[in-house]
Amino acid sequence: MKGEDDVNTAREDEEADGSGEKLLGFNSTEEQPSGPRGQDSMWRNEKYESVPLNVKETDEDHSRGIRDALYPQTALRKAHQENERPKDAKLWPYFQDGLRRIDYVLTYHVQMPQSTHKQSSKSCLCCRFKREPKIPPAHEDPELAAQEQRLDYHDDDQRLRREEFEENLREMGLEMEKEEGTKLPGVGFVKIHAPWDVLCREAEFMKLKMPTTKKYEVSQGSNIVEKVNMFMQKVTAPLQPKVGENQTENEKHLSYPFSREKQHLFDLSDRNSFFDSKTRSSIVYEILKRTKCTKAKFIMGISSLLGSGVYTEAYPLHDGDIDGVNAETNDRKILYEQWASYSIFYKYQPIGLVRKYFGEKVGLYFAWLGVYTQMLIPAAIVGVIVFLYGCATVDDNIPSMEVCDERNNITMCPMCDRACSYWKLVTACGTARASHLFDNAATVFFAIFMALWATMFMEHWKRRQMRLNYIWDMTSFEETESQPRAEYEFHVMKKSLKKEQSPKAGNVKLTCRDRMPAYMTIIVMMIFLIFVTLAIVFGVVLYRVSIMTALHMSSTPTFRTNIRATVKTTAAIINLIIIIIMDEVYGAIARWLTIMEVPKTDKSFEERLIFKTFILKFANAFTPIVYLAFFRGRIIGRPGKYIYVMGSYRMEECAHAGCLMELCIQLCITMLGKQLIQNNLFEIGLPKLKKMLRQRKIDKNHQEELNRTLHRHEKDHFLGPFVGLNPEYMEMIIQFGMVTLFVASFPLAPLFALLNNVIEIRLDAKKFVTELRRPIAVRAKDIGIWYTLLRGISKVAVIVNAFVISFTSDFIPRLVYQHMYSPDGTLHGFVNHTLSYFNVSHFQPGTEPMQPMHLGYKVEVCRYKDYRDPPWSNTPYEFSREFWAILAARLAFVIIFQNVVMLMSDFVDWLIPDIPKDISIQIHKERNLVVELFMKQERGKKYRNTMGDPSPQPLRSRPSSQA
Amino acid sequence: MKGEDDVNTAREDEEADGSGEKLLGFNSTEEQPSGPRGQDSMWRNEKYESVPLNVKETDEDHSRGIRDALYPQTALRKAHQENERPKDAKLWPYFQDGLRRIDYVLTYHVQMPQSTHKQSSKSCLCCRFKREPKIPPAHEDPELAAQEQRLDYHDDDQRLRREEFEENLREMGLEMEKEEGTKLPGVGFVKIHAPWDVLCREAEFMKLKMPTTKKYEVSQGSNIVEKVNMFMQKVTAPLQPKVGENQTENEKHLSYPFSREKQHLFDLSDRNSFFDSKTRSSIVYEILKRTKCTKAKFIMGISSLLGSGVYTEAYPLHDGDIDGVNAETNDRKILYEQWASYSIFYKYQPIGLVRKYFGEKVGLYFAWLGVYTQMLIPAAIVGVIVFLYGCATVDDNIPSMEVCDERNNITMCPMCDRACSYWKLVTACGTARASHLFDNAATVFFAIFMALWATMFMEHWKRRQMRLNYIWDMTSFEETESQPRAEYEFHVMKKSLKKEQSPKAGNVKLTCRDRMPAYMTIIVMMIFLIFVTLAIVFGVVLYRVSIMTALHMSSTPTFRTNIRATVKTTAAIINLIIIIIMDEVYGAIARWLTIMEVPKTDKSFEERLIFKTFILKFANAFTPIVYLAFFRGRIIGRPGKYIYVMGSYRMEECAHAGCLMELCIQLCITMLGKQLIQNNLFEIGLPKLKKMLRQRKIDKNHQEELNRTLHRHEKDHFLGPFVGLNPEYMEMIIQFGMVTLFVASFPLAPLFALLNNVIEIRLDAKKFVTELRRPIAVRAKDIGIWYTLLRGISKVAVIVNAFVISFTSDFIPRLVYQHMYSPDGTLHGFVNHTLSYFNVSHFQPGTEPMQPMHLGYKVEVCRYKDYRDPPWSNTPYEFSREFWAILAARLAFVIIFQNVVMLMSDFVDWLIPDIPKDISIQIHKERNLVVELFMKQERGKKYRNTMGDPSPQPLRSRPSSQA
Repeated sequence: MKGEDDVNTAREDEEADGSGEKLLGFNSTEEQPSGPRGQDSMWRNEKYESVPLNVKETDEDHSRGIRDALYPQTALRKAHQENERPKDAKLWPYFQDGLRRIDYVLTYHVQMPQSTHKQSSKSCLCCRFKREPKIPPAHEDPELAAQEQRLDYHDDDQRLRREEFEENLREMGLEMEKEEGTKLPGVGFVKIHAPWDVLCREAEFMKLKMPTTKKYEVSQGSNIVEKVNMFMQKVTAPLQPKVGENQTENEKHLSYPFSREKQHLFDLSDRNSFFDSKTRSSIVYEILKRTKCTKAKFIMGISSLLGSGVYTEAYPLHDGDIDGVNAETNDRKILYEQWASYSIFYKYQPIGLVRKYFGEKVGLYFAWLGVYTQMLIPAAIVGVIVFLYGCATVDDNIPSMEVCDERNNITMCPMCDRACSYWKLVTACGTARASHLFDNAATVFFAIFMALWATMFMEHWKRRQMRLNYIWDMTSFEETESQPRAEYEFHVMKKSLKKEQSPKAGNVKLTCRDRMPAYMTIIVMMIFLIFVTLAIVFGVVLYRVSIMTALHMSSTPTFRTNIRATVKTTAAIINLIIIIIMDEVYGAIARWLTIMEVPKTDKSFEERLIFKTFILKFANAFTPIVYLAFFRGRIIGRPGKYIYVMGSYRMEECAHAGCLMELCIQLCITMLGKQLIQNNLFEIGLPKLKKMLRQRKIDKNHQEELNRTLHRHEKDHFLGPFVGLNPEYMEMIIQFGMVTLFVASFPLAPLFALLNNVIEIRLDAKKFVTELRRPIAVRAKDIGIWYTLLRGISKVAVIVNAFVISFTSDFIPRLVYQHMYSPDGTLHGFVNHTLSYFNVSHFQPGTEPMQPMHLGYKVEVCRYKDYRDPPWSNTPYEFSREFWAILAARLAFVIIFQNVVMLMSDFVDWLIPDIPKDISIQIHKERNLVVELFMKQERGKKYRNTMGDPSPQPLRSRPSSQA
Repeated sequence: MKGEDDVNTAREDEEADGSGEKLLGFNSTEEQPSGPRGQDSMWRNEKYESVPLNVKETDEDHSRGIRDALYPQTALRKAHQENERPKDAKLWPYFQDGLRRIDYVLTYHVQMPQSTHKQSSKSCLCCRFKREPKIPPAHEDPELAAQEQRLDYHDDDQRLRREEFEENLREMGLEMEKEEGTKLPGVGFVKIHAPWDVLCREAEFMKLKMPTTKKYEVSQGSNIVEKVNMFMQKVTAPLQPKVGENQTENEKHLSYPFSREKQHLFDLSDRNSFFDSKTRSSIVYEILKRTKCTKAKFIMGISSLLGSGVYTEAYPLHDGDIDGVNAETNDRKILYEQWASYSIFYKYQPIGLVRKYFGEKVGLYFAWLGVYTQMLIPAAIVGVIVFLYGCATVDDNIPSMEVCDERNNITMCPMCDRACSYWKLVTACGTARASHLFDNAATVFFAIFMALWATMFMEHWKRRQMRLNYIWDMTSFEETESQPRAEYEFHVMKKSLKKEQSPKAGNVKLTCRDRMPAYMTIIVMMIFLIFVTLAIVFGVVLYRVSIMTALHMSSTPTFRTNIRATVKTTAAIINLIIIIIMDEVYGAIARWLTIMEVPKTDKSFEERLIFKTFILKFANAFTPIVYLAFFRGRIIGRPGKYIYVMGSYRMEECAHAGCLMELCIQLCITMLGKQLIQNNLFEIGLPKLKKMLRQRKIDKNHQEELNRTLHRHEKDHFLGPFVGLNPEYMEMIIQFGMVTLFVASFPLAPLFALLNNVIEIRLDAKKFVTELRRPIAVRAKDIGIWYTLLRGISKVAVIVNAFVISFTSDFIPRLVYQHMYSPDGTLHGFVNHTLSYFNVSHFQPGTEPMQPMHLGYKVEVCRYKDYRDPPWSNTPYEFSREFWAILAARLAFVIIFQNVVMLMSDFVDWLIPDIPKDISIQIHKERNLVVELFMKQERGKKYRNTMGDPSPQPLRSRPSSQA
C-alpha cells in the first residue's frame, strides 16, 4: 500500500517536474538572448529529463553511465573548444544547457580507472581538495572517523548512498547534472539547480520576505533631521564606497513573506533575478538539509553524508571572477574593488552589497566590525589626549619631583636578599616620571569614559543592528532550530543499536547519563588547562625572579643598570610567545572537547565551542596581566619578614611608583605583538605560504591555462572552505577585552586596536572575496552569543578598572594624603608618607646585604614602600592607621566607582532606545501599508466578483470540509 | 472618478456582506436548534439587509427611524413578553433576530424628550454611568475637556458624528443595531456584530493563530520525565481547579495563522464557535480603532469620539450571568466558581480559562501573580526558619549575654543633653536580645538566599511565560504600535491650526520643543515631590526627637520606661499613614503629569505613567526605611561634640544593638499596615460602600426586577469600567521591593507577602469576574515594563542588602573582633570592644546631665558606642585604628557580597535556559509539522492536477504580470 503510494507520488513528482521544467525552459529562452546554444540545450534538457523513472531506479548505474558517457564526450569537449571565446565563460555557472543556473555543488570522490583510490589520492593534483575539506564541515574527530571506517563504506556503498540521496533530491523537485573527472581527475561534481516552482515553494516555507511591487517613501523625520542627514551625506560622500545601490534611497519596496497565493503582490517579470544567487543557494541548502537517506543502516542527512565521505564537499558558487579578461561586472568583482582593498581603508563598507552577496550573518559581522572600528576613533582620540596630558604634566607632578629631588636623601631597603644593597630613592626617578604618564587623574576619567564608551558601543550596535534588520527585512525573522548534527545522529544510532531498538524510532536520544563521561572530561580538562595557564604565569614569575637575582649577583655594572628593563621586556616577550602558542593549542583542545560532548545541533555545537574557546583564550591572554595588576608586589611581606617561594626566591617587588608601569608594558607588548603576529603571520603569511607551495607543484603555464579553462564550480573547488566567523569574532572579542578591561592602565590601547582593525576589515574582506568559497547565506537577526560575551566583558571591565585605579595606581593614596594628612593640602611630603621605616638590625639573619656600605655610609634605618608602624612604636611593623584608612578609601572607591558607572551605563542604556525612532516609525508605517494594501485588494476582489469578471486571482475557496 | 469608485466599492461591500450574511444565517439555522424564531429571524435579517445603500446614504435618518420604530415596537415588546421564560434570557447577547451575536457595544447619551439634558442627568437612575466613565478610557484632563467644550459639540453634532462613524463601520462590513432608551432612560446602545467574512478578513490581517485540524502528540520527554510528571499530576490533582479543559492534554492542535486561502486547514464546521467571544470582540475593537470620522474639523478615531462624548462607553459583553436562575453554564460562571472564590485559595488558578475569557494580557498578570505567590512559599519557609534560628540561639549569643550581665558594670553616656543622665548598659538587655532575632549569622545567609531567590523567580517566570506563549500560540506574535491617542491628535490639530496648515496633512507632530514646557514641569515637579518625601521623613524624625526630649523631661517614671517603645511605634504609624495618603496623592500627580506630557500612543502613555508612578511611590514607601537603615544613628557626632539640627535638637541615636531592630519594626508596620489598609479599605471596603449607597437609592424590589429583565448589554453597563492592570502590578512591585530590598533585616517579610497574596489573587479575581465590565482582550507576549522594574529592584536589592548587612547590622564588627582582636577567638569582650571612653569633664558646657548622681555614684568616664581613641591617647576622640579596619572590612564585605551574589545570579540566569527544553522541542516539532503538512498538500495538489481532477484548491495561478 505504502510502497505503491510512494511510487505513485514519485512518478507524479517526476512528471510535474518535467512539465515545470519545460515551462521554465520556455520562459527562459524567451527572456534570455537565445544564443547559438539555445536549441541545443533544450534538446539536452529534454534528453536529460526524459530518462524514465523506472529505468533510473532499476538501472541507475547504467543510465548514469550513459549520461556520463554522453556529456563529457560531447558537451564538455565542445565547451573546451568554445573556451577560446572568453565571453561565454560567463555562461558557466549554468548547466550544460546554458539555461539552468547551478545553485549548489556537491562533490564526491571518483575512483579513477587507471589506479586505486589510495594511490591516486597520493599522486593526483587535487588530493588536497579531496581529503582536507572533509574535516571542517563535519567537525570529524579521529575516533569517529575510525569507527566509520569500521562501518566500512566502500565505494560501492557510497555510490548507492549517493544515488539514493540524489533520487530523493529529485523527488523534492531539484534538478541535477553530473560531471565526473573532466578537468579535475578523481572529483565528481553534482551540480544542483532549483527550478522556479521549487524556489517558490521553499521561499514560502522559509517565509522569505520579498520586495513587493508597492513602494513607499522613507521619510527622514522632521525637516531639521532631514537637512542634517542631507548635510551629513554630502560630508561623508567621499567616504562612501562607489557601489551603485549604496545611494541613499528615499523609497523602499514594501516587503511581504513570499507566498504563491499572493504572487500578484510581487514583481515576477524577471524570474531569473527575482531570487538572487544567494537566496537560491540557501534554498537549495534548506532542501539538502531536509533530505535524508533512509535505506542505509541509519538515517543519513547531508551532514552525515559529508562526514562519512559519501560526498566530499558541498558549496554554492561565487558569482564570477574578480579579475582577468573574463571578468564581467558582478557583485563579487564590485566587492573586490570597492570593499576588499587596502587603498580605500578610510571608506565605509558597502554593507548592503556584502549582505546581498554573503548573506545576513556575514553582513552583520562586517557591520559589527565597522561599528566597532568607528567607535574606536573617539576612544583612541581621548586616549591619546589622556596620554598627552600625562606627558604634559609630568614636570608638575609633585610625587615624582620629590622622588627625583636629590635633597630628599631617602635610603631604601635592598630589593633582594644579600646580593642587593641599600639604594637611594632618587635612582627610581626615571620610573617615577614614566609612571606618571599612565597614573594620573586623567586616567580615572578615562576609565569612566571607557566604561560609558563600552555601553554606548553596545547601544549603538543594537540600534545599527535594528536598522539593518529593517533595511534587510529581517524584523520578523525567527531563528529555527537546526537539524541534529551527523555525529549526534551517529551516536544515537550506536546507542539504539546497543539497546537493540530500531534506530529509526525517534525516541532515542542522548541523555545526561550518556554524556556524563564527556562532561567529566570537559570539567577536568578545563580546570587542568586553567591550572596550566596559572602555572605558566608562575613559571614566568620564577624566571623573572631568578634572572633578576642572577643579574644582581653578577657584578658587571652595565648589566646592573639595565637589569629591570631587560627582565621586564624579556618576560613580556616570553609571555607573548606563550600566549600565542597556547592560543592555538587551546583552540584545538576546545574543539576536541566539544566534539567529545556530541552536541545535538550545529547551533549548540557552535555555542559550546565558542564558550570553551572563549574561557580558555581569555584566561590565557589575561592571566599574566591580572597577575601583574593585582598580585605582583602585594604578597612580598616586609623587610625582615619576606615571603619566599620555592625555598629561597623572594617574591618580586614593584618599582617604587607601583606596578602600573609594568602592567602597561605587558599590555602594550601583548596587544601589539599578538596583533602583528596573528595578523601578519597567520592571516597573511600562512595563506601566502600555502599558495606558494601549491604553485610550486603546478607549473605556472599549466596553472594559467587551467585558470582560463576552468568552470566556475571547478574554480571554486580550488578555494579554501568557509570555516565560519568564529575565529574572527574571537580575535575581536579578546581585543575588546584588552581595550576595555585594563584601559585604566593603558590609555593607548584603543589607538592600537583602531589601527589594527582598519587593516583587519580589509584583510577579512579580501579573504572572503578571494580566498574562500562562497559561504551559504545564513539569515540572522543578531550576532548571537557574541553580544552576550561583549556585554559580559564590559560589565567585568567596570569592576576591573575600579580595582586597577584604586589598588594598582597610587590615585587613592594621593587623594587620601591630600585630604587627610597633608599639612597644606598639597602632595608635598607624599613620598615620605608612603614609606615606612625599618630598623636594619631587624633583618633575619643571613638576609642582610653583603655590602652594607654600598652607599658610602652606614645605614641604620632604611625605608620601604608600605604603611606600617615604625620600629619605635608600641606595635612595630603592624599595619598602621593610615594603612587601614587608605584601604577603606580604596574599597569605598571601588564600591562608588562600580555602582556609579553601572548606574550611568544602565541610564545610558535606558536613555537610548534600542530601536531608532525613525525605524520604529517606518516599521509601523510598513505594517499599516500592508493592511491597506490588502484592504484595497479585498475591495478589488469584491468588485470583480460582483461584476462577474472571471478573476485571475485565486477564488475564495469554500472550506475543504465541504469539498 | 474617485467618488464613483467609492460608491461602487461601498455597494459591493454591502452586497458581499449581504450574501455572506445569508450564508451564515443558513449555516446557523442548520446547526442551532431551530427554535420558533428561526424563520422569523431569517426574515428580519433579510429585511435589515435589504435597505438599499442609496436610501441609507441619502436618507439615513429616515431609515434609522424606520428601523428604530420597527424593532423596539415589534421585537422588543415580544422580548419583554418572553422575558418570563428565563431560558430565553440566554439569547440576549444576540441581536433582536436572536442569531447575530453582539460582539461589542457602544453607548451614547440620548436627549430625553421629557426634559433637558442637564435636568435628566441629575434625576435619572443612570447618571453615574453617563458621566463617570468618560474619564478612564480617554484619560481626559480638565483643561482638555474645557477646550473641547469650547469647540462646542452639541448634541446634533454628536449625532452627525455618530452617523458618520457608524456608516464607516458598516462600510468595513460590521453590522449594527440601535436601541435607544428602552430600560435605561437616556442611554442609547449601538450593538455591533461582526459577520463571518469580516471575522475571517480581520483574523487574517491580525495574523491570529488558530488551531488547525491537525493534532499532534505533546511528548513529555523521556520516560523518567514522563513518570515524574504523571506522579506530580496525581499529587497535585486536588490542587487543580475543576475546569474541564485544564486536564493535561497529550495532544495539541497545530496552530497556523488564519488565512482565507488556507481555510481547508481549519475545522470550520461550527462557524459560531470558531472564533470565541473574546476574539470576536477584539476583532471588532481592531476595526473600531482603524475607523475614522473624517468629515469633522479634524480626524476622529474611536478614542477621540469617546473623549469628546460622542460615545460615552465602549465595551464588549460578558458571556453570561454568574448566579441566579437564569445562569446557564458559561465561562464566566465557571471562573466565578472555580477561580474567584476564597474557599479554594489553595488551588492553582485556571489560567487557561482566564486567558480564554479575558485575553492574554490579563491571563499573564494572574499567571505572574500565581508564580510570584508560589515562589514566596519557599522564601517564607526559609524566612521563618531563619527567624526561629534567631529565637533558638538568643540565649547562646555572647554579646547580648554580656550586655545583660550585671557584673559588667558599664556606665553609658547620657542619651540626651541635660535631661538625661548616665545609664547602665544592662538596662538595654531586652533590646539587645531582641536585636539578635534579626541580626545573626543566618541573616547573611538569608540575604544571599533571597538575592538568588529573586533571580530564580525571574528565571522561573521567564520559563513560565515562554510555556504559556507556546500553549497560547503566541510564540511568533509581534506587538504592533498602537494608534495615536485622542489627546495627542487633538494637540496636533491645535498645533496645525496655529500654523494654518491643513490638519489632515500627516506631517505635523509634536516635537521636543512643543513638549518642552511639559518636560520642564515634570522634572521640577518630580524633584519637588522627592523633596517633599524627604521633608516628610525629616519631619517625622523631628517629631521623634522632640517627643523623646519632651518625654525625658517629664519625670513620671511610667512614661520613662515606655518612652522608646511609644515613640518608635507612633512614629512608625505616622509614617505608615503618610505613606498611604501620599501614595494616592502621588498616583494622581503622576497621572496629571503624564497627561500634560501628551504621549503619542497608549503604550507610551502607559509606560510613562508607570515610570513616574513607580518612582514616586517607591520613593514614598522606601525613604523612611532607607533613613532608618543607613542614616539614623550615624550622623550624631560624639559625646562632647554632638551634631544638632534645628538649633537644639540632637540627632537621634540608635539603641545599643544597632538600628536593625527599629528598621525591622518600621518594615513590619509598613508592610502589614499597607496591605491590610489598602486591601481591606480600598479594594473591599470602598466598593462595598459604593454598592450600599447605590442600593439605598433604588428600592430593592425594583432592583431585583431590573436584574431579571435586563439584557446582557444593559447589565454590563452597570458594571464598573476596566481601568487596566497597572494599579495591581504596582502594588505587587512595591511589595516585591519590601520582600527583597531589606530582607536582611526582616526575614518574615516573605511570609507576610505570601499571606497577603493568597488573598490578593482571589480578591482580584472576584473584581474581574463580578465587578468590572469585560476588558477588551489584548494580546501580549510578556508583562512588559514590569519585568524590567522587577529586574531593576532585584539588582538594587543586592547592593542594599550588602549595605544593610555590613553597615546596619553588627555582623562585620563581630567578625573582625573575633578574627583580629579577640584574645581567645570567641566573642567574649566584644561589647567592651565596641564602646569607647569619654571623659565627662569634656562635656560642652550646658550639655552635661542635670542629675549626674542618678546612678548613685560619681561618674568620671562614661562609655559610648563608637570606635574612637580614648581620652588618654595622643589623639583623643579621633577614629581609632579599629574603626578604619572595621570600615575596610565592611566595605570589602560589600564589594565581595555584591559581586559574588551578582555573579551567582548571572550564573543561575545562564544556567537555566529561558525556554524550557520540552517547549523548544515542541516548537521545533510544530515547525516541522507545518512544513510536512504543506509538503503533503503540495503532493496532493500535484496528484489532483495530474489526474485532471478539477481541484477545489486555488490553482497555482500564473504570475499576474502575464495575466
